Amino acid sequence: MAGMPSLDLTADVVALTAALVDIESVSRHEAAIADAVEDAVRAVPGLDVVRDGDAVVARSDLGRSERVVIAGHLDTVPVNANLPSRLDGDTLYGLGSCDMKGGVAVALRLAATLAEPVRDVTYVFYDCEEIEAEHNGLGRLARTRPDLLAADFAILMEPSGAVVEAGCQGSVRVDVIVPGVRAHSARWWMGTNAIHAVAPVLERLVAYEPRTPLVDGLTYREGLNAVGIRGGVAGNVLPDECRVSVNYRFAPSRDVDGALDHLRAVFDGFAIEVLDAAPGALPGLDRPAAAAFVTAVGGEVRPKFGWTDVARFSELDVPAVNFGPGDPSLAHSQGESVPLAHLRHCEATMRRWLSG
Amino acid sequence: MAGMPSLDLTADVVALTAALVDIESVSRHEAAIADAVEDAVRAVPGLDVVRDGDAVVARSDLGRSERVVIAGHLDTVPVNANLPSRLDGDTLYGLGSCDMKGGVAVALRLAATLAEPVRDVTYVFYDCEEIEAEHNGLGRLARTRPDLLAADFAILMEPSGAVVEAGCQGSVRVDVIVPGVRAHSARWWMGTNAIHAVAPVLERLVAYEPRTPLVDGLTYREGLNAVGIRGGVAGNVLPDECRVSVNYRFAPSRDVDGALDHLRAVFDGFAIEVLDAAPGALPGLDRPAAAAFVTAVGGEVRPKFGWTDVARFSELDVPAVNFGPGDPSLAHSQGESVPLAHLRHCEATMRRWLSG
Repeated sequence: MAGMPSLDLTADVVALTAALVDIESVSRHEAAIADAVEDAVRAVPGLDVVRDGDAVVARSDLGRSERVVIAGHLDTVPVNANLPSRLDGDTLYGLGSCDMKGGVAVALRLAATLAEPVRDVTYVFYDCEEIEAEHNGLGRLARTRPDLLAADFAILMEPSGAVVEAGCQGSVRVDVIVPGVRAHSARWWMGTNAIHAVAPVLERLVAYEPRTPLVDGLTYREGLNAVGIRGGVAGNVLPDECRVSVNYRFAPSRDVDGALDHLRAVFDGFAIEVLDAAPGALPGLDRPAAAAFVTAVGGEVRPKFGWTDVARFSELDVPAVNFGPGDPSLAHSQGESVPLAHLRHCEATMRRWLSG
Repeated sequence: MAGMPSLDLTADVVALTAALVDIESVSRHEAAIADAVEDAVRAVPGLDVVRDGDAVVARSDLGRSERVVIAGHLDTVPVNANLPSRLDGDTLYGLGSCDMKGGVAVALRLAATLAEPVRDVTYVFYDCEEIEAEHNGLGRLARTRPDLLAADFAILMEPSGAVVEAGCQGSVRVDVIVPGVRAHSARWWMGTNAIHAVAPVLERLVAYEPRTPLVDGLTYREGLNAVGIRGGVAGNVLPDECRVSVNYRFAPSRDVDGALDHLRAVFDGFAIEVLDAAPGALPGLDRPAAAAFVTAVGGEVRPKFGWTDVARFSELDVPAVNFGPGDPSLAHSQGESVPLAHLRHCEATMRRWLSG
């Protein structure tokens, strides 16, 4: 199609990351970037390519004894005056540079240039990771095409500071619902202001002291945050409802039911509606394939604070770790960026591991 | 136009109120009701009718020495499962029954049946009273057609419990703006949660003690209420801004600048953006025309808590009072209603006064 963005997989990983950042791909608007990725991997000899919605799966079939998945999502959080990409010294800036188009670029470089990997590789590029879990493209594949995800081990190239991050925290999102009674704001004493009644909910959030549990030798760091608040009927009406959307991130030693019980205790006295729930994943470093990768990249292992699709692989019984370029603490920030050294280190490390 | 609602001004005031309620007319959607009102008053002999947007002005021209305005707005607050109208015993229920289609029905009955009023009458039916002041149809007429509003006295038929309510409180609406720093909710310690930071704003609202000033012998009752709150970027992001819309209703002894100074003091330390400001109106019972009406209806005078367009007439130097059917404390409530006795009392009182 004329004017469709195209990707040059012979370009170096920095240029390729910049090209991916410059294809805007906020969640639910990944068609253009998925088209470009699909075209690029279809041009690589020896890869079998499947398009599923805005996900693209490309597999080698070399008859190796081991198969690994290398996966990354194509979508980003909303634009925040951080496009297009901008190269400044040894850092590339722009929406998605960190989370996680750098990782996607590394995977695409490996797909295009590793003609004879010692392990068969399934590259998975997918949609809708940054929104409600029900829309997640990897989740869709796990439900409808689990055959495409079958593997001995998976590496999710989410930003991890270019070191191995194991496990991941779970995430649940609930609305705390505070009722009121509508009235005209000039005769406010006839009603009950639902927004004023939210004060104790916010006070509990402010006072909340998150846990830092130790799991399999890794210290996790939980968090409880309002991510949305809304109330209001008209400019002269006391509203009859106010809702606070709260996101709880919890260590993988707690399951979703335990997390919800905890939220019910924290917001005791208020109604709660569950919007979204995703279990964490235990580090799983005792699994042979995981241990082998950690040894191969020779590195430090850290706990993963963010929820990542590592948990989906865990549910499919595929051991998985996070390993990707970018400082995870910059993900979703206005000024997110990725160090060029991370991009090059991740590409070189993965290439060495897959070359034997 | 086929299917257009029509109004029968020979019906009694209760049936006419019900017919007006059953023409849905949320602010900015008054075309259908304005069409029906325009058609109805154009059919009355001796009235000169002007249509201006969704306002309708109908004037007698009998050469009387005194001219009075009888005015009412056609719009309502949003629908809240309170349509269509429902008659139950001696009460009519439904959106707008109280605020203020009962008053509109009384005015339409007078327009249709008073062939020889002792005072010339200008009937004014207008749009967009329930939303931001800038859209107000009476305000538009005051700016563009002040000749249509010229009069010795004005009666605004807002619900007043069928007694005279004098003066009106002022109203300002501001956004209190609370900043934060965006971050991924799994790495919340990298950011500052703007929603959590709203807690002290709500605490000040909860703790606020409104004044009850005495003005010209009438005791007013101020109020400070949140009427809207919004914040949130995505389900996994700490938001960088949260806004609380606050409505301050203040006694007419305070002007708009004084009201804003007061809000700046209450929300000291937070940025404020002014959304809407409307001055109050002093009771003005010392003006001869106002005093004459009060004497004629023989009644009690109460302070008006709600802001009404009485203030717009004050600005045009036309003395004005509120006098209309319905309990003002029910305005904007889900179950608003009007007593049939109020409708009949207001019609009879006004008819007597205008018949000499």
